[in-house]
Amino acid sequence: MNSRRTRIYEGKAKILYEGPEPGTIIVHFKDDATAFNAQKKAVIEGKGVLNQRISEFIFTRLNELGIPTHFLRSLNMREQLVREVEIVPLEVVVRNVAAGSLAKRLGIDEGTQLPRSIIEFYYKNDQLGDPMVSEEHITAFNWASPQEIDDMMHMAIRINDFMSGLFLGIGIKLVDFKIEFGRLYENDMMRIVLADEISPDSCRLWDIKTQDKLDKDRFRRDMGGLVEAYQEVARRLGIIAEGEKPERSKPKLVKTDLN
Amino acid sequence: MNSRRTRIYEGKAKILYEGPEPGTIIVHFKDDATAFNAQKKAVIEGKGVLNQRISEFIFTRLNELGIPTHFLRSLNMREQLVREVEIVPLEVVVRNVAAGSLAKRLGIDEGTQLPRSIIEFYYKNDQLGDPMVSEEHITAFNWASPQEIDDMMHMAIRINDFMSGLFLGIGIKLVDFKIEFGRLYENDMMRIVLADEISPDSCRLWDIKTQDKLDKDRFRRDMGGLVEAYQEVARRLGIIAEGEKPERSKPKLVKTDLN
Repeated sequence: MNSRRTRIYEGKAKILYEGPEPGTIIVHFKDDATAFNAQKKAVIEGKGVLNQRISEFIFTRLNELGIPTHFLRSLNMREQLVREVEIVPLEVVVRNVAAGSLAKRLGIDEGTQLPRSIIEFYYKNDQLGDPMVSEEHITAFNWASPQEIDDMMHMAIRINDFMSGLFLGIGIKLVDFKIEFGRLYENDMMRIVLADEISPDSCRLWDIKTQDKLDKDRFRRDMGGLVEAYQEVARRLGIIAEGEKPERSKPKLVKTDLN
Repeated sequence: MNSRRTRIYEGKAKILYEGPEPGTIIVHFKDDATAFNAQKKAVIEGKGVLNQRISEFIFTRLNELGIPTHFLRSLNMREQLVREVEIVPLEVVVRNVAAGSLAKRLGIDEGTQLPRSIIEFYYKNDQLGDPMVSEEHITAFNWASPQEIDDMMHMAIRINDFMSGLFLGIGIKLVDFKIEFGRLYENDMMRIVLADEISPDSCRLWDIKTQDKLDKDRFRRDMGGLVEAYQEVARRLGIIAEGEKPERSKPKLVKTDLN
């Protein structure tokens, strides 16, 4: 850690520092893994670097597609510079195949293709265990406006379209994923942009041929081989070369220029 | 029971018999009480009669207001004649004040006035414990169409408006209630109508002055005095006279005429 930096917030998997210019944040990806509302914890060396690199790759492509995100650029293997946003207190989950809590709650066998993609909202509140909520709760409690819900659902569908194609192209089924959004205030305007990260920590990714899980379920279900699975995803995406192991980088402060 | 009648279905609190004419059903209100997905059970003498009479009263008023229901008329103290409908597999809950599962899931003190009325949907499936679902699940699994969801929400709001006023007028706060809808096929047309029942079994009703619970929570929470509470609701609604106890009626088949 660099003591000259001001820490804003430390979460389960990331630390946020004040960025070099107003309206920017430095996101530091930790190696900490948590599951089941942090009842299960571990440190998995190398995970943070892999997630940062995979998330950088996906957010860069989404920006290019015209889907606005908070991402500006990576600063080093483990850190990225992002725009400061006001996080909408919702986890937005897009599901293509039944798995996890949906399979359990609705009594559907895990692995069943859903009749269409389903978008779910969960209220971000660790104390309550992130309860599922509907548009009715979201608008009644003013967590997001109807227009913001529409914007988030529209972007969630586009992100699902892109990522389904991306992963299909590398032999991986995108089962489901979780995203978060933030409000970006700029020139007296507010707009919703994609925030947080997209990585094997926040997706379910199944190898199409072997059905192997290449995601955080390896940790949730004590299957082992988590870093190897994340490396495999990074390798297929062309982010790390065959045989390369991402360095265990130490964060360093990089002089940034937003222009 | 009348052995000449054909039993169609027996549920937790009601028995359905074939009606005297095609497209009709006789609903028999039992004295059985269940809670927590039937893990808790009891027979409470007189409950079925009270629920039938209260439900008859409310459905008759809703029909008069132009809110379509399955209700035709009462046959005796414990039974009513209704139109046969295809039940939509959803429990629709309207909440005005935080209580029960909403209070617990969202960490809100029971009794807190909600910022606005909230409509929730639960998938009717005892095996799964009636999980909460959103419009996304309902349309993806084809439990109801978007138009049907709109119709149900529109009727739910109107029913809440009417019932909030009705109960306020007799010193009772309508905290929340559960309703069900059915598809009525008629003249090659299909429309959504209110079905099932509205009674202290399916509402939370709090005395405005004393905060006394006048509903099924008396059973859920082992408070006793359930029949007395339901009688009090019926008395204030003018359904039973001061001091009257509804007779423990035996069902009898009544010759019906739908015209």
